[in-house]
Amino acid sequence: MKIASLQRRSIRGLKPYDPGLLADYRFKLDANENGFDVTKAARKKLLREMAKINFNRYPDPGTLDIRKALAKKNGVRVENVVIGNGSDELIHYIIQAFTDEGDRVVFPSPTFEMYKILAMANSAVPVASELDGRFDIDVKDILEKARGAKIIFFAYPNNPTGNCFTQRKMEAVIKKAKCLVVVDEAYFEFSKKTFINLLTRHKNLIILRTFSKAYSMASARLGCLFAGREVTDVINKIRLPYNVNALSQACARVMLKENTEAAVKTILGEKEIMYGLLKDVYPVVKSDANFLLIKVNDGARAKKYFEKNGISVRLFKDGILKDFLRLTIGRPEENRAALKILQRGV
Amino acid sequence: MKIASLQRRSIRGLKPYDPGLLADYRFKLDANENGFDVTKAARKKLLREMAKINFNRYPDPGTLDIRKALAKKNGVRVENVVIGNGSDELIHYIIQAFTDEGDRVVFPSPTFEMYKILAMANSAVPVASELDGRFDIDVKDILEKARGAKIIFFAYPNNPTGNCFTQRKMEAVIKKAKCLVVVDEAYFEFSKKTFINLLTRHKNLIILRTFSKAYSMASARLGCLFAGREVTDVINKIRLPYNVNALSQACARVMLKENTEAAVKTILGEKEIMYGLLKDVYPVVKSDANFLLIKVNDGARAKKYFEKNGISVRLFKDGILKDFLRLTIGRPEENRAALKILQRGV
Repeated sequence: MKIASLQRRSIRGLKPYDPGLLADYRFKLDANENGFDVTKAARKKLLREMAKINFNRYPDPGTLDIRKALAKKNGVRVENVVIGNGSDELIHYIIQAFTDEGDRVVFPSPTFEMYKILAMANSAVPVASELDGRFDIDVKDILEKARGAKIIFFAYPNNPTGNCFTQRKMEAVIKKAKCLVVVDEAYFEFSKKTFINLLTRHKNLIILRTFSKAYSMASARLGCLFAGREVTDVINKIRLPYNVNALSQACARVMLKENTEAAVKTILGEKEIMYGLLKDVYPVVKSDANFLLIKVNDGARAKKYFEKNGISVRLFKDGILKDFLRLTIGRPEENRAALKILQRGV
Repeated sequence: MKIASLQRRSIRGLKPYDPGLLADYRFKLDANENGFDVTKAARKKLLREMAKINFNRYPDPGTLDIRKALAKKNGVRVENVVIGNGSDELIHYIIQAFTDEGDRVVFPSPTFEMYKILAMANSAVPVASELDGRFDIDVKDILEKARGAKIIFFAYPNNPTGNCFTQRKMEAVIKKAKCLVVVDEAYFEFSKKTFINLLTRHKNLIILRTFSKAYSMASARLGCLFAGREVTDVINKIRLPYNVNALSQACARVMLKENTEAAVKTILGEKEIMYGLLKDVYPVVKSDANFLLIKVNDGARAKKYFEKNGISVRLFKDGILKDFLRLTIGRPEENRAALKILQRGV
């Protein structure tokens, strides 16, 4: 028996996802994490909360404390919130819940790779709509491609380009699309731009948020989904009953009471400095997130320089993003180290 | 637009999984957790390990430390191990990776409900093979139903019946089946029976284990999959890259060095006492796990009694399991409280 021949048809061409991490590094600027870890005070609270856990007991399957806090904070109802084992899991759930084999899933390109990978992993058909020269969306093309499709995904701000698409273009898609529209606002705390206020009017709208970026909680894998009850009811049918472990739930409870504004402000300030210093040397996208997309002269050489200096960055090798480097804006000393290499010319 | 009409066809009849938990209870004997929490010494180590975490960083996507330790402990190679966000996630991955719409997934009935639910959630077709009068498997029926199927699932010991199926019957299925055979050994530390030694000879065999039972780590959601490289390579294609968070990884690292034998021994002793006292009063299945399946006289009345006394148990309402009650063997005082009710006659 050939095991490979038993596998799902749509994943035969897939390779395991490679986050492309450098094994040994001083500075990690490759995954758009918050360079600032939680404060000492928050760390204490996190450990105190975890000390209370009954390790032998299953976690709350309803993640009720977190959903209540998030509902209150965002002006929605508890039943409008679903918590995931990271946004990855929520993206997967959306596709799993709302597509049958061959159904189309539309997204701009380039964007966050998981929309395509998870569409394929669920036997849906990924359909890309190319961004224009300013990395903005083409509403007409998206709506055409979405005819008969089940889901449109947007990362907003977009990853890896870093920009927010034009607001009225987004609204046009949300209003006109006859399918689900997912707006993945992973970097919302940096962009301050959101479509969550459109939830009540548009039952097909889904907003995603995460604790992995501004909240400094990438370790805990916590994603949040906001949508109308009709959507969350379907997601909850296929959600694994205990998908969010008790330790991560404790982390979310603590962090929802913390103020992340200080770190966010520093990062945004650092981003402006970096952008100002780099924009005359390289093509750099004006970013609404905590990272910059930079077109270097020679990607392979740039990667070597960064690696030699122990700095892990994300370098794209193929297609329209060839020789583009995505640099997370980290702590000042990390940014200075990256800047030093970039100002040398790579 | 009707959101419900967009959903996957195979989940239209599904309801969100209800773990059937009692909201307010003194004693929790409903989910086969280990009634003994981790020792004080282990708790200290757990918290010390978690204090070291960089909360702002993504977890190790390869869960390498844990896989290495598990590989060593079980005499397999690192590439034969996959860690999941609970066994639920691993069951889901197996079905997602190896079935297309309409492919059949076979399992004995009654058994752990997630095999059926997750088959449906992935558009596979669940096929049940009824257990015989002794809750043992019917090899001929299973092999017939598995012809052209993709996967056979066994819980071993079976849940909720508690017994291990006859070993040579299991081996017959593993040898003759032309599809994947998954043996879910969630209660292995209680039964001490395993098929992991057959892994090298049978590329279609998958063994599942968990930290949720004997290891007292239900809170952390940690499942383990052991299989040949051909299987794990396919699973890793669709595994979410950061599916196991850093806190749970820290828990696994600590607990793999702990000895769980003392609690297991106490529970097994308690089980023998309970079985001895109950078997002349009710039909009780001889159990290889940490729970007993008991046929009461009136399920609804029994449930009421247990609830009144603040004891959460799992009561089955339908089909062949009507009026069967699954009682986790917990700490001595918990078991005594349950016994008191059962000896009254319910």
